[in-house]
Amino acid sequence: MLAVVIRAPGDVRVEEVPEPRVEEPTDALVRVVAAGVCGSDLSVLRGLTPLPRPVRSGHEFVGVVEDLGAGVTALRRGDFVLAPFSTSDGTCPHCRRGMPIACENGMLFGEFGSDGSVLDGGQAEFVRVPLADTTLLAVPGAPPPDLLPSLLALTDVMSTGHEAAVHAGVGPGATVVVVGDGAVGQCAVLACRRLGAERIVVMSRSPVRRRLARAHGATDVVAARGEEGAAEVADLLDGGSGHVIEAVGTLESVRQAIGCAHPGGRIGYVGLPWGVTLPLWELFGKNLTLGGGGANVRATMPGLLGDVLDGALRPGDVFDAAFSLADAPKAFEAMDARRCVKPILRPALDL
Amino acid sequence: MLAVVIRAPGDVRVEEVPEPRVEEPTDALVRVVAAGVCGSDLSVLRGLTPLPRPVRSGHEFVGVVEDLGAGVTALRRGDFVLAPFSTSDGTCPHCRRGMPIACENGMLFGEFGSDGSVLDGGQAEFVRVPLADTTLLAVPGAPPPDLLPSLLALTDVMSTGHEAAVHAGVGPGATVVVVGDGAVGQCAVLACRRLGAERIVVMSRSPVRRRLARAHGATDVVAARGEEGAAEVADLLDGGSGHVIEAVGTLESVRQAIGCAHPGGRIGYVGLPWGVTLPLWELFGKNLTLGGGGANVRATMPGLLGDVLDGALRPGDVFDAAFSLADAPKAFEAMDARRCVKPILRPALDL
Repeated sequence: MLAVVIRAPGDVRVEEVPEPRVEEPTDALVRVVAAGVCGSDLSVLRGLTPLPRPVRSGHEFVGVVEDLGAGVTALRRGDFVLAPFSTSDGTCPHCRRGMPIACENGMLFGEFGSDGSVLDGGQAEFVRVPLADTTLLAVPGAPPPDLLPSLLALTDVMSTGHEAAVHAGVGPGATVVVVGDGAVGQCAVLACRRLGAERIVVMSRSPVRRRLARAHGATDVVAARGEEGAAEVADLLDGGSGHVIEAVGTLESVRQAIGCAHPGGRIGYVGLPWGVTLPLWELFGKNLTLGGGGANVRATMPGLLGDVLDGALRPGDVFDAAFSLADAPKAFEAMDARRCVKPILRPALDL
Repeated sequence: MLAVVIRAPGDVRVEEVPEPRVEEPTDALVRVVAAGVCGSDLSVLRGLTPLPRPVRSGHEFVGVVEDLGAGVTALRRGDFVLAPFSTSDGTCPHCRRGMPIACENGMLFGEFGSDGSVLDGGQAEFVRVPLADTTLLAVPGAPPPDLLPSLLALTDVMSTGHEAAVHAGVGPGATVVVVGDGAVGQCAVLACRRLGAERIVVMSRSPVRRRLARAHGATDVVAARGEEGAAEVADLLDGGSGHVIEAVGTLESVRQAIGCAHPGGRIGYVGLPWGVTLPLWELFGKNLTLGGGGANVRATMPGLLGDVLDGALRPGDVFDAAFSLADAPKAFEAMDARRCVKPILRPALDL
């Protein structure tokens, strides 16, 4: 079968690889219908995250259950399933506390964990999913094809945007600032609107992304960045916002988020902070609360699924470029060059 | 009159200085009855915080109103008052949002602000308090002398400990870990018990401080520090605590707090993080929420005052050594050498 393989920094290919199969009684074999390319895939490609050996990439995917181990009880062959970016057993102390993202027996798809572990990723025709009962989320019935992108968004960026908004304390009537106009920032805007925010300020200088953010519910756009951008936000919002979302993950964007918050405010931080080292005084001196981290997708998806299925939540439009699996390198390149917000790969065009 | 003056790093003296007087219509002149020595006074003495010129030190004090400007309406001569460590006008955007600690027109007592501003501090016989109406909190009637230390504790350490517990999400039934066995850590233990925590683990290797923590309601004590201490806490609490208080402010103590938290946990951080620079990944990778900062004392004190006045909350015992004002250098030295938890200075022995 075909799979996307990152062989080394800068070297992404589509290769013919052995087809996976059920190995453990708790495994599922999933035929991938759609897969996303994520900013963290680009981090791997750029050599920012460890790549001790070539990896089948991709941690955002949806598909159909083709085969099941004998121990799987919650899924059936033919189920349409959403996969979070890591597996979880549902029984470890962290899973029991509602944090499957931190599962003691969980592994990341297509990206090396700090312990060197990795699972073959989902930018492929088929993928093996361990701990399937507690990892995969089955969608009732067969979803209409036009919902595919929005369902795919739930596996990472929409869940991430939602958690950013929750950590920023967004609720009815809130005024929010979103730092980051990529897919996660765009989903955060949707999440803020869904949670009842009244004013949503997005920081962006890209006409395409500003337009998308406004379509998602952004009420204001600030083009300036850094200290200048924060000063403009402070002017706009009487000293800053109590709710700020950091959806980039650089030192500059974190500082921009801090600058946009008023004293006592909350920052939801979901941008992967590779190499970001922050003097804690910058938070302390403004009495800021910083909450977030990698999205707890398996716990978050079920609460958003209903709104996607009934069309109330449509994050799928963050996928603004579609590629066949064979063209995956072009998808990576388009995202890297910011020619699109986020590519969708379609290993199979039918459900 | 006598006042404590820090002339240069390492040089603290008691000097005869001009007596302050009402200068602005919004001023109060307070006769100081008791003043605390704080860890951040030691930071000034050690040269860790800027000292562009000699300063009358002290930001924890209680006393009696001796004189008032014509514009003060909420106070009367003879009122017994508690002073937070900074002034606030009650009308700026931050004050209106309930964050007087961040008042745009506020100044710190006895410590230079980032803009070089400073007010003469309260380790003195008298002190001038600007913006008195919205800075000072009057206690109804004359408090009994045995409550003085507990009232003094409200002006900083008890309010700080309470806010740490609130930011750590402590509530009924909670299990909490407190990193730091100084006055703030000790007050945090009291705050946790008051908020209904069931299990309070204090990290301390000092027999005196362990005993004090147990008297305040600590249920467990862990002597080990750093990674070893965090591992011991993880063993004790099935992977860590959801509620951790950081009451020291060094990189080591922040990391110890992170190590004691389970994924998804909350850390209340109130230790002044001078020079602490943290890779954000250490928080992100465990989905931790960090909230706190300098205590918002003027807003917090009123909610704690009733429990102090009726004896339900007794933080005064963190002051385990008393000195006359003339002996202030000895008090600084005793605290610096950890021969006491926290000294109380008594410029006047009567109310």
